[in-house]
Order: sequence, then C-alpha cells, then structure tokens
Amino acid sequence: MTRFANSVSSLSSSEIRDLMSLATAPNMISFAGGMPGNDLFPLDEMDRIYNSLTVKEKQAALQYGPTTGMPSLLESLSGYLEARGLPVKKNRLIITTGSLQAIHILARAFIDPGDSLLVESPSFIGALSAFRACQAKLVSVPLKEDGMDTGRLKKMLESSHPKPKFLYYAPNFHNPAGIIYSRKVKQEMITLLKDQDIPIIEDDVYSDIWFHEEDLPEMKLIKAMDPEGIDVCFTGSFSKMLGPGLRLGWMLVPEHIFRKCELIKQSIDACSPSLSQVIADKFIRRGDIFSYTARMREEYRKRGLAMIDALEENLPAYVSFVKPRGGFYTWLQLPEGTDSTAVLRKAIEKGVVFVTGKTFDPDGVKNDQMRVSFCNTDVVTIRRGIPIIADAIREVCDR
Amino acid sequence: MTRFANSVSSLSSSEIRDLMSLATAPNMISFAGGMPGNDLFPLDEMDRIYNSLTVKEKQAALQYGPTTGMPSLLESLSGYLEARGLPVKKNRLIITTGSLQAIHILARAFIDPGDSLLVESPSFIGALSAFRACQAKLVSVPLKEDGMDTGRLKKMLESSHPKPKFLYYAPNFHNPAGIIYSRKVKQEMITLLKDQDIPIIEDDVYSDIWFHEEDLPEMKLIKAMDPEGIDVCFTGSFSKMLGPGLRLGWMLVPEHIFRKCELIKQSIDACSPSLSQVIADKFIRRGDIFSYTARMREEYRKRGLAMIDALEENLPAYVSFVKPRGGFYTWLQLPEGTDSTAVLRKAIEKGVVFVTGKTFDPDGVKNDQMRVSFCNTDVVTIRRGIPIIADAIREVCDR
Repeated sequence: MTRFANSVSSLSSSEIRDLMSLATAPNMISFAGGMPGNDLFPLDEMDRIYNSLTVKEKQAALQYGPTTGMPSLLESLSGYLEARGLPVKKNRLIITTGSLQAIHILARAFIDPGDSLLVESPSFIGALSAFRACQAKLVSVPLKEDGMDTGRLKKMLESSHPKPKFLYYAPNFHNPAGIIYSRKVKQEMITLLKDQDIPIIEDDVYSDIWFHEEDLPEMKLIKAMDPEGIDVCFTGSFSKMLGPGLRLGWMLVPEHIFRKCELIKQSIDACSPSLSQVIADKFIRRGDIFSYTARMREEYRKRGLAMIDALEENLPAYVSFVKPRGGFYTWLQLPEGTDSTAVLRKAIEKGVVFVTGKTFDPDGVKNDQMRVSFCNTDVVTIRRGIPIIADAIREVCDR
Repeated sequence: MTRFANSVSSLSSSEIRDLMSLATAPNMISFAGGMPGNDLFPLDEMDRIYNSLTVKEKQAALQYGPTTGMPSLLESLSGYLEARGLPVKKNRLIITTGSLQAIHILARAFIDPGDSLLVESPSFIGALSAFRACQAKLVSVPLKEDGMDTGRLKKMLESSHPKPKFLYYAPNFHNPAGIIYSRKVKQEMITLLKDQDIPIIEDDVYSDIWFHEEDLPEMKLIKAMDPEGIDVCFTGSFSKMLGPGLRLGWMLVPEHIFRKCELIKQSIDACSPSLSQVIADKFIRRGDIFSYTARMREEYRKRGLAMIDALEENLPAYVSFVKPRGGFYTWLQLPEGTDSTAVLRKAIEKGVVFVTGKTFDPDGVKNDQMRVSFCNTDVVTIRRGIPIIADAIREVCDR
C-alpha cells in the first residue's frame, strides 16, 4: 500500500486513495513494482538451507549478532565481493537491514540539516526519501543515456558553495532510468571529484541481472576502480538475488567512515536480522547464489526482451525509451511537457498501473517520463499490458 | 563485541580493548549480557512453524511487506495485545525492526537537535544512544524502589523551559534497575503530565517474564490505563519471548503519531524482515507464545531466585540490591562513591564480567552501582559466579 502511495506521491491524498482502490483491484496488471515476482523466489534452496541448519546455527539465528554483521556472513560476502573485483581488504563491510538502511546510515553520517548533496535526476525514490528525512538540499544532475551529464556536474561543482556532502549515484541498470553508466562517464566523474573531499555513494543492487555478458567490462564499478583521492561508499543488497523480505544489504566503506556508521547503526536497530543472515550466508557458501542468479538473469532477460518487443510494436513514434540491457526497468520519454499522471489515470481505468516520472525527480516536478518495470510481470502479461499503456499514452497525447 | 564495548563505554579505547580480550576469554562467566541464553530459544517450535509454511507463506517471507507490518501479524499481535488490556482499537500498531527501532523512530518523530527530554536515571542504554543520536538534551529523573521520583519530576516540569519533548520510561522489571513501578507512581506521573503536551514513551519488553502472579495488578501499564490528555506511545518486542535475532518489535501509538512514524520508518528500512514476521505470526496463532512464555517464566524465575540467594549469602552487608520479581536483571548499590569500574577490573581478573553503573547513567557519571544479569547464566553458574563478584567488591571496598 505504502509503496504504491510512494509511486504516486505527487498526488493529493484523496487522489491517491482513489487510485489505490483501483490499482489494487484483483485483475490489475502492474508494471509499478520494483520487487521480484513471488514465483521467482528460491524456495527450494531456502528449504534445503533451513533443514541443513545445526542447533547451534539455529540458536545463532535467534540471538543478537554483532552490530556490523555476523562474522560468517561477513566472511562469505567478502569472498563474493572480492571475486567481483571489489577492494574488500582495503575497506570495511557492514551488514545492514536492506541497502536502504545502508544509504540511510551514510546520509546520517554525512548530512546535517540544510546540507546539500548531489543526486541524479531521475533518482531512486528510497534514497531521495532517506536524504529528505535528513533535511538535505538535493542538487540534481540530469542523466543522459550513458550516465550523468558530467558537463553539468562540473558546473555545479564550480558553483556550489558550501560544497555538497557527497554524490549519490547508481551505476548499472538504473532505477528508474534503466541505463548503464559508460566507463567514460565514470572516469570523468572520478577526475572531477578527485581530492575534492566529496565522497561517492555508489548504489549497486542490479549489477548481477545483466542480459549481455559483453556489457560487463563497461559496467565496472567505481569502487572496483579504487580511485585515489575519493572515498567511495559502495552499497548493495540481497533483495534482488535472494529476496527483499530478508531485509539484508551492505556497505563497503573506508575505515574512518565505517566507525561512524557502526555507531549510527547501533542506535537504529542494534543489528540486522540474524535469521536472515544465517540463511544468506549458506546461500553464498553452498553456491546457490551463482545458480540462482544465473536462472534469474535468464528469466529477467526474457521479460526484458519481451518488453522491448512490445514497446517497439505498440508505442507511438513520439515516445522513446532506452532498451534495457539488464535490471528491472524501462523508462519512457513522453513528448515534452506531457503529464504522465494523466496517462496513469487512463491506464488504471483500463486495468494497468505503472509509476509516474515526477516520483523520481528530486524536485518532484518533471513528469513527462514514466517507469514501466518488467520484474514482476511474466512475458504473457507484458504482451497483454503494454498495448494498453500505449493506448493510454495515445489518448492523452493525441487529443 | 560492540555490546560489550557499550557496557564499559566509560573507559578509554585501549582500556576497553584490554578488558575485551579478557572478558571474551573462553571460561569467563558473564553476568553482562541482556540477551536470553542460547539454550532457551524455542527451536522445536521454529522448526514446526517453518515446516508448516505453505508456498504462498514462504513467498511472502521473501517479499517486501507493507512498511507498517504484514497484515496477518498486525492482526494476531493486535489480538495478543488486546488480551493484555491494551487499547489497540483506539490506536495504530507498527511492526518495527526490534523495539529499539520503535524508540529510534519515535525519537526522530519528536526531537530536533538540542531539544530536551525526560529519561530515568539509570536508563536503558539503547534508548539513551538513540536519543543521543538525535542530539537530544537528556534530563534525568532518579529512580526509587517503586519508580521514578515524582517529586523531582514535578520540580523538573515546573522549571524546564522549553518543555521536554517526551518522557521515556520502562515500567516493569526495569533494565538495569530491576524494579517494578507502583500504581501509585504511575498515577502521579499521569496527574503531572495530563494536558501538558508531553507524550510518554512506555517501553515494555520484560512484562511477560514475571515471577509472581500477584504482581500483575501493580504492573498495569499506563497505556492500558488509557489516560485522558496524554499521548502514550507503547513499545514492545519479540526479543524476550521468541528471539532477538528476528529483530521484531512494535509500537502502539495514537493515529497522528502513527502517520509521522510510518514515513520515518519508510526512509529507514522500508519494512521489517518478512521472514521474521511470518514466523512470529505463526508463533502467536499456534499459541506457542503462551506455552513458551510460561516455560521461560519458570526458567528465569529459577535463575532470579538463585541470584537472590547467592547475593544474600555472599554480598557484604554494605551492598544493597532490589530483589528481582521478574525480568533479567539485578542492580547492586555499592557504598556511595565506589567506582564500579574498579570492581569490574577485579572481577574480570577472577573470570567474571558484569556491567558498570555509569553505562546506564544519562550523564555517564554516577558509577557506584552495577548491573548483574541472570538471563544468560544457568543456576549452577550463578552460584559459582556471585561469590567471585562479592570478592571483587570486597577487594575494592575493604582496602
């Protein structure tokens, strides 16, 4: 309910109530969610893991653990991240209650009320809400097809006084924009931020869901590049490769930031759920994480390709979109100035829901884009739902 | 590690390191922890619950849930709390990631940096750390044997300008003081706070662990009294009646506070762990919560009575303590001005650890008391460890 309300946060509460009662109707097709489909969760693996737990492990699952995470999971996750090229040994790892908590803790660590920080436009709504909760001033850098507009970033850095406390960005299969950052853009960001005392929060929860192996070199993380002269705080999550219901994420950060974050986490929830941590640890150690991720990649790839086909076939020529190469989302650009909320209203009348553009705009204004996700709808439903969205767009734009 | 560091937070970091390496030695007897013993967790019940879950329930366990909690758990927990006399229907319930998160969220809802609030001295270290994280000014009301000193509370209310944002207190089997608030003191608190626009946060995580049924009428919660003219925010936890590793707590609060807290929780971790919620829901619905709590009451009662016997037998006459009538803790009053950190050093040399008094002092100063918990040590170990503590006290006080 709440997440739906989020997706239309630009509306009045009575409008939200009306839309919600429609949008949660039984036969509604939803392209709104950012969660994996229920049918995709690794239930067999979870059963095998649960039934293999020793008495000691079950006791640990019900007991408090250390604030920064259970040692066994820290070890197995370190190995997993190291294999992905991340400089684990030079940094410290904290297990968090979802990656949103990692972002929230970092925000608390860096921001005092009124401080400014750099975010992308569009940006992940969860991070925006964490930053707003800290009363931060959001300065937004527009996204292009290969990452943030570094020309604009340069100008902002030159003109921002006092300087922003950090830059928050998502490198791969961006939520909501669906893009991959090019190496070139990341290199320009590094050059601009080097020795500026402006840390980067690199939020990477979709990287494992690539559709094309040849993209991997381009997807290299700034944290993995390990640039001199920039504190890079890397955040990630088990939500997309095990299940968000476990509420497990992490941050990999330099030692001096780690110490601050540990204290903050201690005052928020003492430690993350031990039961979830015991299961996630086994999921890595048994290798389930690799087989499951491979399966999910294949499934989301089918959905993503079906989405591209359906959009190409049905959208009017004046709507453009970036073809997703991984992740959960497609991002549609409507004719300039179109009100995507009007499109949403039409779509809901016809039985389909998605998320309006201004939901992801740090200023809550720009609304001529829309996020259509394919993570939670199967191929058949995608083929059925996209023509309806196309109709709704036409009804709003062609009149 | 972190929780141990907490327990001796008044020391320098090198002192903490030294003590930690001693205190975590293999044969150390610990009266320091505030967690249930590992051997007491309901593993059979958890196995039965896990193996009874349907595919749909397991999917829900891995999926995001609503920010305020899964509907089924909200329903079963409402029934449980209603049966305990709480005005559930007149309020709203939020499932939180441990009761510490409930306290943290309420602190965020009420406090701006520099605001003052009323706490007990001594008080729960987790709450103090959440309040400090909000940069609150802690105004402490001393505890007596039957609750806070309401004479002092009255004076503080008269002299505090601007007035405190709320009063935080723990009614039953206080951590660390071990006391029960009398009805009389609670009534006086109600009279003093009525129509003052100073909400009460009533933190109640030990009530179920009573040793003497005749205490129940005296233990009646202020939230259950449902006083006119005061917003009472009630917080509780599954940590003591299922397992802290699930990270599940709750708050029961008036509607207008609920709305603020829902938004804050959304920015912290989106929702609490679904897997934990599915298990806790079944734990209530199957009635396990009643049979398990009864078993735990019996076990902690044995430990508490053994603790009283051992203390009466071994402590020098100049040390007093309140006989615990439930919960996890005894609180020892050393001769005025004694440094309990010196006692802790001696005790650790002899193989026993506990928590020093100033850890729980909102001002971090008063140190002539000490918390000795009996939740995580069996009867035999209590009989072995308490004489050692008594020796350590003598060595410090008799020289």
